[in-house]
Amino acid sequence: MSRMILLTEGMSNPAEAKTATGLLRYRGEEVAAVYDSACAGRTAGEVLGVGGAIPFVDSLDGIEADTLVMGIATAGGELPGSWRAIIRDALRGGMKILNGLHTFIADDPEFAPLAAEHGGELIDVRRPPADLVVSSNEARNTACFRVHTVGHDCGVGKMLTALELMAALRERGHTAEFLATGQTGIMISGGGIPIDAVVSDFVAGAAEQLVLENRDKDFVLIEGQGSLVHPLYSGVTLGLLHGCAPQAMVMGFDPTRTTIRHSEQAMPPLKKVIELYESMANVMCPSRVVAVAANTSSLDEAAAQKLLAALRDNLGLPAADVVRFGCEPIVDAVLEERLRLSEGSSQGG
Amino acid sequence: MSRMILLTEGMSNPAEAKTATGLLRYRGEEVAAVYDSACAGRTAGEVLGVGGAIPFVDSLDGIEADTLVMGIATAGGELPGSWRAIIRDALRGGMKILNGLHTFIADDPEFAPLAAEHGGELIDVRRPPADLVVSSNEARNTACFRVHTVGHDCGVGKMLTALELMAALRERGHTAEFLATGQTGIMISGGGIPIDAVVSDFVAGAAEQLVLENRDKDFVLIEGQGSLVHPLYSGVTLGLLHGCAPQAMVMGFDPTRTTIRHSEQAMPPLKKVIELYESMANVMCPSRVVAVAANTSSLDEAAAQKLLAALRDNLGLPAADVVRFGCEPIVDAVLEERLRLSEGSSQGG
Repeated sequence: MSRMILLTEGMSNPAEAKTATGLLRYRGEEVAAVYDSACAGRTAGEVLGVGGAIPFVDSLDGIEADTLVMGIATAGGELPGSWRAIIRDALRGGMKILNGLHTFIADDPEFAPLAAEHGGELIDVRRPPADLVVSSNEARNTACFRVHTVGHDCGVGKMLTALELMAALRERGHTAEFLATGQTGIMISGGGIPIDAVVSDFVAGAAEQLVLENRDKDFVLIEGQGSLVHPLYSGVTLGLLHGCAPQAMVMGFDPTRTTIRHSEQAMPPLKKVIELYESMANVMCPSRVVAVAANTSSLDEAAAQKLLAALRDNLGLPAADVVRFGCEPIVDAVLEERLRLSEGSSQGG
Repeated sequence: MSRMILLTEGMSNPAEAKTATGLLRYRGEEVAAVYDSACAGRTAGEVLGVGGAIPFVDSLDGIEADTLVMGIATAGGELPGSWRAIIRDALRGGMKILNGLHTFIADDPEFAPLAAEHGGELIDVRRPPADLVVSSNEARNTACFRVHTVGHDCGVGKMLTALELMAALRERGHTAEFLATGQTGIMISGGGIPIDAVVSDFVAGAAEQLVLENRDKDFVLIEGQGSLVHPLYSGVTLGLLHGCAPQAMVMGFDPTRTTIRHSEQAMPPLKKVIELYESMANVMCPSRVVAVAANTSSLDEAAAQKLLAALRDNLGLPAADVVRFGCEPIVDAVLEERLRLSEGSSQGG
């Protein structure tokens, strides 16, 4: 088991420190500290809403850890210039660097010799496999039930929903696998492909490959990326959607998004977004949005319940906040959809 | 001016030899020969329907040329193994190799030393610029009128339509630029970005960059790629569509496509495809399909005219075969749409 320090220097907010919060939630027992000098002395739970008493620090000194993790996911994925000194210190201490940004640290002319000299390691999880190919349009023919967590925006809980669904389905006795498509999901699960770093011609092929490798499972939970209505990332989203050919989608939703993140564009109504996803997914195979996974963390409990009720009424779909109230309604919806589709196909319709 | 030999060995059909046919059509005066031993002795016009008397050959010997062009665009973009010997011969003769496949010849351990030894050159036009970034969602705010040639499938004439529209708009006194997004368009125009070779996160940014660099023009004609309903390439298509944020789209159509190329998937009705493009484009800015550019080469003249009339009736849109009958109806539709949108915006609605 590794001992990690999560680096979020200058960026300790839930939007930018997405990788840190994901690791705190799912591999918290391996996290020794979070590094941001502006927050030193406070705890991860206080600053990021997850991670309990794990401390924020402003130095690597005296912390028992072997790995420094780049804890952010910025638009464009560049390494902040001010972080270089911290990374150099970690390398001089023999630490391993775990990086999910588009900037590859293993190619860095300063870091590579330092790692070699002090026995460290430079790991870029966003470097895609070299042997990817175009899709053969085979995912839609697999027998596993393919569930894709999508969203109306970035950072609305697509990864988290997929991880929670996997756990819940396993608890009910099914075989289920989380298929990571982003840096944080890969760091959490130890597998997957960083789909937004793949050459665009091969995105659908990469998604297909993940499904084909797991076709023996009862369920695969494919982590979504971006949004079909996101002006910066929609192509990634559609390539992934068509490559994994889901039969069921779970729609991630954050009620605070009046504009699309990293843009000034107005957010379309959720009903419209669902229609777009279903239209585009149905190009590949019959596919519906079966539930909404809402992030209600901006609301008190009463307002959260009211929002979920309104979503159910307006959309005619189960709605849940998987972190706050559990994912049971969504699991039920997925199982019902599988039953419905299998009955349809056994009747020849 | 270069003298080119186009290599299409074993693949001299219009679907695979797309790069060769594009160069024969738009840079035919620079083409000395087409290389395919199966067709030697015949002419480009006979075999590929374009290029007139330019001969097919089965050897490089005795042909005055300085450049060997990889004349195909295969699914996946790999270099056929049997071509290696021909490339080695060309390099030993000091020729330049112009390549648009995903396989980069400049990185080839065998070719690079041969090129160095004999003074040749290895040019990979599908290698994207190194400095691409995510989109800033700015294309939609440019004053140039953005026309995007899209399609219901690959290889239905999107590049050709954009090139013909550019020429026709210039003839009518407008400034207009063709923005190449694929290997053949880049070879023809000498500029552009190979969008399907770009890291998926940067596709919209690359398309945006092409528009921003040409924002001073009256019109930009952005070459489309793939299709929104193409299971292999739809992500490329959507990233490009959102990145260039067109106000008008021209829909490429080939009536012979009952299934989508490189797949066994049924082709949806054209009306449905148009609806999907308009729904997805409108996420970014108001945008309509204003005309259909049909490839009627499979039909005799009477059947072609009948098809165009049926398209007009069924879709309520102008329809033309730009190669066979000229692109005037499409140019008129583009100009009308620009007028309509400018009148709408000057009325504040």
